[in-house]
Amino acid sequence: MAFETKIKTVFWEDGRVCMIDQTLLPGEFKIVRYAQWEEVVESIRTMVVRGAPAIGCTAALGMALAAQNSAAITRANLDEYMAAAGNVMKGARPTAVNLEWAVNRMLAKLATFEGSAHDATKMLLDEAMAMLDEDIAVNRAMGKFGAELIPNYANVLTHCNAGALATVGYGTALGVIRAAVEAGKNIHVYADETRPRLQGMKLTAWELSQDNIPVTIIADNMAGVLMRECKIDCVVVGADRIAANGDAANKIGTYSVAVLAKHHKVPFYVAAPFSTIDAEIPDGSAIEIEERDHEEVTHIQGVRIAPEGPNIWNPSFDVTPNELITGIITERGVLTAPYAVSIQQSNSNS
Amino acid sequence: MAFETKIKTVFWEDGRVCMIDQTLLPGEFKIVRYAQWEEVVESIRTMVVRGAPAIGCTAALGMALAAQNSAAITRANLDEYMAAAGNVMKGARPTAVNLEWAVNRMLAKLATFEGSAHDATKMLLDEAMAMLDEDIAVNRAMGKFGAELIPNYANVLTHCNAGALATVGYGTALGVIRAAVEAGKNIHVYADETRPRLQGMKLTAWELSQDNIPVTIIADNMAGVLMRECKIDCVVVGADRIAANGDAANKIGTYSVAVLAKHHKVPFYVAAPFSTIDAEIPDGSAIEIEERDHEEVTHIQGVRIAPEGPNIWNPSFDVTPNELITGIITERGVLTAPYAVSIQQSNSNS
Repeated sequence: MAFETKIKTVFWEDGRVCMIDQTLLPGEFKIVRYAQWEEVVESIRTMVVRGAPAIGCTAALGMALAAQNSAAITRANLDEYMAAAGNVMKGARPTAVNLEWAVNRMLAKLATFEGSAHDATKMLLDEAMAMLDEDIAVNRAMGKFGAELIPNYANVLTHCNAGALATVGYGTALGVIRAAVEAGKNIHVYADETRPRLQGMKLTAWELSQDNIPVTIIADNMAGVLMRECKIDCVVVGADRIAANGDAANKIGTYSVAVLAKHHKVPFYVAAPFSTIDAEIPDGSAIEIEERDHEEVTHIQGVRIAPEGPNIWNPSFDVTPNELITGIITERGVLTAPYAVSIQQSNSNS
Repeated sequence: MAFETKIKTVFWEDGRVCMIDQTLLPGEFKIVRYAQWEEVVESIRTMVVRGAPAIGCTAALGMALAAQNSAAITRANLDEYMAAAGNVMKGARPTAVNLEWAVNRMLAKLATFEGSAHDATKMLLDEAMAMLDEDIAVNRAMGKFGAELIPNYANVLTHCNAGALATVGYGTALGVIRAAVEAGKNIHVYADETRPRLQGMKLTAWELSQDNIPVTIIADNMAGVLMRECKIDCVVVGADRIAANGDAANKIGTYSVAVLAKHHKVPFYVAAPFSTIDAEIPDGSAIEIEERDHEEVTHIQGVRIAPEGPNIWNPSFDVTPNELITGIITERGVLTAPYAVSIQQSNSNS
């Protein structure tokens, strides 16, 4: 069983940045197309596209689009325009390091490119397209390494969506699942629904069903009792930013799952490309955690479900400390503790 | 600050069983009135009324109503009718022991009562009314014992609704909060929203706001990181059935909160009247766990939010083992480990 990447989360077509509008899934499958780079910024901010690797690739395409939009005649004009666009793009969401990484890579490529504004614009699109190809290749490499950790007939718990929809089209955590299935293993996935935005229910369960991988949706608060009943063999989640010591920021609730896994002696894996590792920050305490609108909690599909009056707390991410992580699955292999050492070694071997 | 029981969850009026329709809260506050005991069974089954103590009191009123409905002339007819009604009533929901306890108490009272069908019918209503009064008295006694465990300026996490709406009008877990506030303490409550039915968001946050007790709603998966940030001083939850060894069944997700509390060394209290203790069962493994409709997970307020295709798992309760419970707050005092001993001692002292 080999998976074609049927799900094309983000792509370039006819001079526009195109993506699945993930705010409409699973009720409606719709491709949106943006001709202005500012629309791409907005698509990241409003989570039309989400998932750290997908955000990075979208930002790269958005930068290529910005170069087109600039209609700059001189290199000086282009470089100035792109620096400004890059700053706006990086501000779209704070937690995922891939966003910053992708924009910086595009700007660095531009800085070292010697050629006209016209040629530089073409080069930036080529670079963005290369990043999309790399994302798929990296996901597949991670999948191969990760699949070896998943036993046949495993029940795997995942949280939020680190799947095709969080990447260009294969997935990090769900890429590991896909690779295990491709390797002939029978896998059943438990998907935490992942309040408040329900990406586990709406995206993970949807995309696994598209690929005929058996999946059961549970409310987030059911993971504990499933582990107690020995119904979870391992946990695989994604990450939005990983510190130099292995502390990993991921969707809110990931930390609770990690504590539950530790208590029940269930292996807990983080699957993330190396671009997710932010070597600049020593540990998770330095990771900025985005807080989002209260309406994500109080309303569902536009309908108010909460009473008026109470306060709301809505952090979008939390940080899982390295001691709760059994292994970090990357495209260069599976890193284990001590992560400060294994991350540095993999970095210098690359 | 003393709380009048402004919230009358269930009561008797003009020959009918009346209750707040909790399926409509917080959007609409509506009292429903039932003249037929079968409607009372249905109200328990469909969770118009919920919460173990409230279910028990509702069942008692329902039995009084059944006696009226029977229009029995002879005692033999009445006794036969009541035995049948009791069986149906007990089958409305499986997990809460208070339901069984209340029905059995009504039937036992009837069995020892010597008098006409007419007098027995009147006696059954008196007994049910006495049980409602006892519920308030028991809640207040529990509140006094429990309040001593709550420090001033505490942030208290609770799960689901073990409040006025889960009882006749004061609350078990939230009764402890109310008593602490009455004692002059400043308390702030974090309310887990409690998927899938969101009783924490819809009921707990609503009723605390009615009483001007500060409350913040969080998604269930946010409790872990709150504890990690030392923002929770203690957890207080209710229970639907407690085994002879102290294992406690409560709303799904309670077990996860208990594991998180243990990991973070946060005291974890269960507040429940003695009628919640089922001495017949040695430990939690014997507690039947109700599984409810998948639509509770896949739909919110009638709107489908989940994709078609994936499986759903929807247990309504889980069991927290006694070793994760710091204390069980009852109307006879706070029980501590070993619970098999403390429960037995409190029982024989009563």
